[in-house]
Amino acid sequence: MYISKSFIPILKDIPSEAKIKSHQLMLRVGMIKQSSAGIYSWLPLGFKVMKKIEQIVREEQNKIGAQEILMPTIQSSEIWKESGRYDDYGEEMLRIKDRQNREMLYGPTNEELVTDIFRSSIKSYKSLPQLLYHIQWKFRDEIRPRFGIMRGREFYMKDAYSFDVSDEEAFFSYNKFFISYLRTFKRLGLTAIPMAADTGPIGGNLSHEFIILAETGESKIFTDKRIFDVETGDIEVEKKSLEDLRKKYEEFYSVTDEKFNKDEFEKTVEKKNRLITKGIEVGHIFYFADKYSKPMNAAVDLPGGKKDFVKMGSYGIGVSRLVGAIIEAKFDEKNEIMKWPISVAPYELIIIPMINKNDNTALIKAENIFYELTKNNIDTVIDDTDENYSSKIKKSNLIGAPYQIIIGKKSEGDLLEFKETGKEAKNLPLNEIIKTIKELKVKN
Amino acid sequence: MYISKSFIPILKDIPSEAKIKSHQLMLRVGMIKQSSAGIYSWLPLGFKVMKKIEQIVREEQNKIGAQEILMPTIQSSEIWKESGRYDDYGEEMLRIKDRQNREMLYGPTNEELVTDIFRSSIKSYKSLPQLLYHIQWKFRDEIRPRFGIMRGREFYMKDAYSFDVSDEEAFFSYNKFFISYLRTFKRLGLTAIPMAADTGPIGGNLSHEFIILAETGESKIFTDKRIFDVETGDIEVEKKSLEDLRKKYEEFYSVTDEKFNKDEFEKTVEKKNRLITKGIEVGHIFYFADKYSKPMNAAVDLPGGKKDFVKMGSYGIGVSRLVGAIIEAKFDEKNEIMKWPISVAPYELIIIPMINKNDNTALIKAENIFYELTKNNIDTVIDDTDENYSSKIKKSNLIGAPYQIIIGKKSEGDLLEFKETGKEAKNLPLNEIIKTIKELKVKN
Repeated sequence: MYISKSFIPILKDIPSEAKIKSHQLMLRVGMIKQSSAGIYSWLPLGFKVMKKIEQIVREEQNKIGAQEILMPTIQSSEIWKESGRYDDYGEEMLRIKDRQNREMLYGPTNEELVTDIFRSSIKSYKSLPQLLYHIQWKFRDEIRPRFGIMRGREFYMKDAYSFDVSDEEAFFSYNKFFISYLRTFKRLGLTAIPMAADTGPIGGNLSHEFIILAETGESKIFTDKRIFDVETGDIEVEKKSLEDLRKKYEEFYSVTDEKFNKDEFEKTVEKKNRLITKGIEVGHIFYFADKYSKPMNAAVDLPGGKKDFVKMGSYGIGVSRLVGAIIEAKFDEKNEIMKWPISVAPYELIIIPMINKNDNTALIKAENIFYELTKNNIDTVIDDTDENYSSKIKKSNLIGAPYQIIIGKKSEGDLLEFKETGKEAKNLPLNEIIKTIKELKVKN
Repeated sequence: MYISKSFIPILKDIPSEAKIKSHQLMLRVGMIKQSSAGIYSWLPLGFKVMKKIEQIVREEQNKIGAQEILMPTIQSSEIWKESGRYDDYGEEMLRIKDRQNREMLYGPTNEELVTDIFRSSIKSYKSLPQLLYHIQWKFRDEIRPRFGIMRGREFYMKDAYSFDVSDEEAFFSYNKFFISYLRTFKRLGLTAIPMAADTGPIGGNLSHEFIILAETGESKIFTDKRIFDVETGDIEVEKKSLEDLRKKYEEFYSVTDEKFNKDEFEKTVEKKNRLITKGIEVGHIFYFADKYSKPMNAAVDLPGGKKDFVKMGSYGIGVSRLVGAIIEAKFDEKNEIMKWPISVAPYELIIIPMINKNDNTALIKAENIFYELTKNNIDTVIDDTDENYSSKIKKSNLIGAPYQIIIGKKSEGDLLEFKETGKEAKNLPLNEIIKTIKELKVKN
């Protein structure tokens, strides 16, 4: 309720080790604190944003019928030897020996473990499709962790896995995640573009990365810029309409650098439509058929009586990375104004009373407004510190609640000084303010 | 919505490796699956229960003003060397070398890391008290992991830490957690008794374990049985009333075996009131003053201008263990009936229609009821499988939704066959059923 009671350790200066704006802002407003190279603690402000993102990701997974499970962080090496990836994975895998000298590892991804869960329970095509996901910490022992939580070593990820009886059914599952990802990123206030991508260590032959544009991005991208105008609209989750949606995107050339082919780009895309820029990968989906089910012997009975290896895909969203990605997309560095999408804002509104030593009328007014807003489920905080006006506004702009109410000395009557963060103030009665915010929330 | 579409791998037989009833039930109804010794995956049914428990734990932490953060699972050894615990902790600590050959570890607890966070941000008594908590996976490399998730290696725990300027203030914080724990366990349908306990590797001189009675418990306990009749009542969170509450409990002898003293027990407790039995530890709180803040140099400015080391306590609840503990307390093994407290039930109600090959009227009726219940926020599932009546009831009793609606062939009119799990059926109209369940939920 009060900033003074909250654990929000604000830094005066931009930490020199932070090279990109999300890392800088997250350290400045105390969203995170580094504990060792590429490993961070999430402090209350950062934690709140990440939890809100996690919840949106979860809701959109549930909407397509995916079921949530939770696999452990520490895995046995045995299943990785079965799939053949134990030796391939290299030094990015954090390898561990337990007290019994057994080879364990901190999961960088979960294809093996989920296949093991599947094969021990599901025996028939009748139980398919199965869409399983979990949201869990992963570890990749990056040689050069950097950019804060954007390329950390311990990171929070949603990874989903689909199991189907045939390629056709598996493409349907793939497309369900395709639409689910577009919806997820939209709710987060991001325009993420699906791009044909390389499959890397996951393997397979069909893959899309979901990329948001950002100058600080590590992915180089080549697109026909008209892809940004594709409208998703209200799509039903059934085979034909999902196929059509994917086709609408695939009409336009759009690849990351691993898939880039200069001749093809120049042949397919008119000069005026070419866009070569950088982006941040926020999601990645893969179809790899029986790459894991075959070596791990995950087969199901088919309708005719035969058996076949189940067809699998996997689908990742970087939940912790998204906190940084949204900052990269939304933070106005020049004016030092962050405005979080209301769906994930650490607070929806900050009340900023001007407090004098001998006069607490502004604070009391702030408290009354706080209770009114809280009753209306508006997530609010009061900056009750005794800092001066400009310092409070500056801090509030960095914390990035999308709305502010300022209670100055001259504030009088029923009209309040109400500001959409970074814009001009308006004088509005409280009930109008509540209406404005509620309407925005319904839309998001 | 449908059992047939859910990932609930039911086992026909009780797995022989499971020695206690919670482990047996969790494997039988597919709540968990072991992935390696002492390490489990949580399947949808188990996951739902654990998440509901987590949310209750969270709400009760927030109510006493604790703020949620999230520390990483992997920690650097350096802070453990500062506190002096790195060598003490022994083989239960999972020690790891990363690719740069740095000594890391999987956190078994977080006193060091949270002290490091505190000392880098809080410099003055004015910012105290601070109550910080997180809910995160921990790892203890038990030599003999057993009893399923009750004594696993990777486990999910809420751990909180308090920071105060003086012993007096610190006891106030300690007592806040004391009441918060009583409230938490009550909402989970458990009677947990605070018992004077040994401080073990955490250290300090004041400690309580919260114990629930269970024959399969690993803690031996010695109490004056009148402690079970202590009424908490509506306690305000302020110094005096919390002190009084603790005194009410401390009037009665109640210790775990490490603290047991035969002479004292027999002297203090009348024969008729003596109870020697077993229990399960579900929470443990510690006060250890400057045990960590001193070696780690976490000091704050005092009002007079001097500095002093901050006074700390820590407070744990085993979130994953509670899933098992509730089963130990509630599962009627003889009749094979589990009835989850409605606050954490995987489903609040199971609809059991009797399905014939050529007649789907019962299923259609079930679906209509499902929508009505869902509209009323009652978490419902339909057992749409084609198993026979007794097999469906048996399964439903094991899954443990507190209520069942059975739709037989002869079901007619507006009256439904409604059962509190394990009790006699009643015939009630749907609106009465909804009212009954809603009233129970408000109370919990």
